Amino acid sequence: MGVGVDVHPFASGRELHLAGLHWPGETGLAGHSDGDAAAHAACDALLSASGLGDLGALFGTADPRWAGASGVALLTETARLVRQAGFEIGNVAIQVIGNRPRLAARRTEAEKALSAAVAAPVGLTATTTDGLGLTGRGEGVAAVATALVVAV
Amino acid sequence: MGVGVDVHPFASGRELHLAGLHWPGETGLAGHSDGDAAAHAACDALLSASGLGDLGALFGTADPRWAGASGVALLTETARLVRQAGFEIGNVAIQVIGNRPRLAARRTEAEKALSAAVAAPVGLTATTTDGLGLTGRGEGVAAVATALVVAV
Amino acid sequence: MGVGVDVHPFASGRELHLAGLHWPGETGLAGHSDGDAAAHAACDALLSASGLGDLGALFGTADPRWAGASGVALLTETARLVRQAGFEIGNVAIQVIGNRPRLAARRTEAEKALSAAVAAPVGLTATTTDGLGLTGRGEGVAAVATALVVAV
Repeated sequence: MGVGVDVHPFASGRELHLAGLHWPGETGLAGHSDGDAAAHAACDALLSASGLGDLGALFGTADPRWAGASGVALLTETARLVRQAGFEIGNVAIQVIGNRPRLAARRTEAEKALSAAVAAPVGLTATTTDGLGLTGRGEGVAAVATALVVAV
Repeated sequence: MGVGVDVHPFASGRELHLAGLHWPGETGLAGHSDGDAAAHAACDALLSASGLGDLGALFGTADPRWAGASGVALLTETARLVRQAGFEIGNVAIQVIGNRPRLAARRTEAEKALSAAVAAPVGLTATTTDGLGLTGRGEGVAAVATALVVAV
Repeated sequence: MGVGVDVHPFASGRELHLAGLHWPGETGLAGHSDGDAAAHAACDALLSASGLGDLGALFGTADPRWAGASGVALLTETARLVRQAGFEIGNVAIQVIGNRPRLAARRTEAEKALSAAVAAPVGLTATTTDGLGLTGRGEGVAAVATALVVAV
């Protein structure tokens, strides 16, 4: 099993991509890629479970192939690498921590998009920090993920 | 397996309920419910492991039945829903992050209360952030939890 | 399974010990021990998985035997206690969150040091918080870890 955390700051003038979905009308997140903190945390959870390195090592900012890549694309490729290394993926769980967007109305849709990328069940939850810390002040969005993989 | 995080701010004039225990003489935590960040993180860990939604979806602030509900009550009901959905609960681990209260003296008692609510082993640990961040500044208490469930 | 988080502030005039390695020329981390947040998070993940207490309870600041102890020493002793309590260790995953040091170049070396301490596979990843929060402001280093243990 593995764990991953990711944080991206809000950036005006960017489209919001989070938890595998596009959120029209919401402030976007900064980042070399699309800033999808939920997908990125899931990637690092899968990679740390498998001992395959991390997001920065595999899809680094120096690699032009992944500039602007979607979180879903990174997650799909991560799942492929994990299976190629001889692991089956049990499940992934992700919690998004932030004031915006409100995930509740699209939680099932996001779980479907993320589960399709991983090709295994992805559970998604959301919470806030009641006004405290970087997410409570509305500076950005954080996500934490765990993943279970089984050597086959 | 799943993961959950929760944060509640300290609120003067409230009783402190944390990790399934009442802490007389300590400053309480704000929240729609009793503010028990440890129990809430455990609920989201169980729910994300099982793909059943999250605390907000199941026990939302719009639902008067859960207004002021104790963390132990929410955790008991969460465990029931997880089992009803066809999962057995392996264990839950929770880490409380904050300056106060000092959990050490009552760690075993808290583990018993939380384990009784889940009807499975709950391991509880505590740490501080050495003065840094929202917990280090004494603004509130954070908790992170993981849960292992098995489809039966 | 279990989870652990740890945070230590940077402290000028200290040597940096992180993820089981010495980092010459980098600013160190404050702490009763060597401040190795990655090793400490791994200890609490193992302990919470096993229900054996936490780092503070087992290696508390009041115990002179562990003053200045290395994170690797604490992790080695933790793994011994977990096995003594009847568990086998499946794996440990750790994510280091901070601006400095850059772990990428020494990730494999750190994984070897930590895996040797635990005597089980340890996966290590690193991330930043894009300038946000305590780690983004460069106040310190955080780490989050998960551990899988099996009762034997």
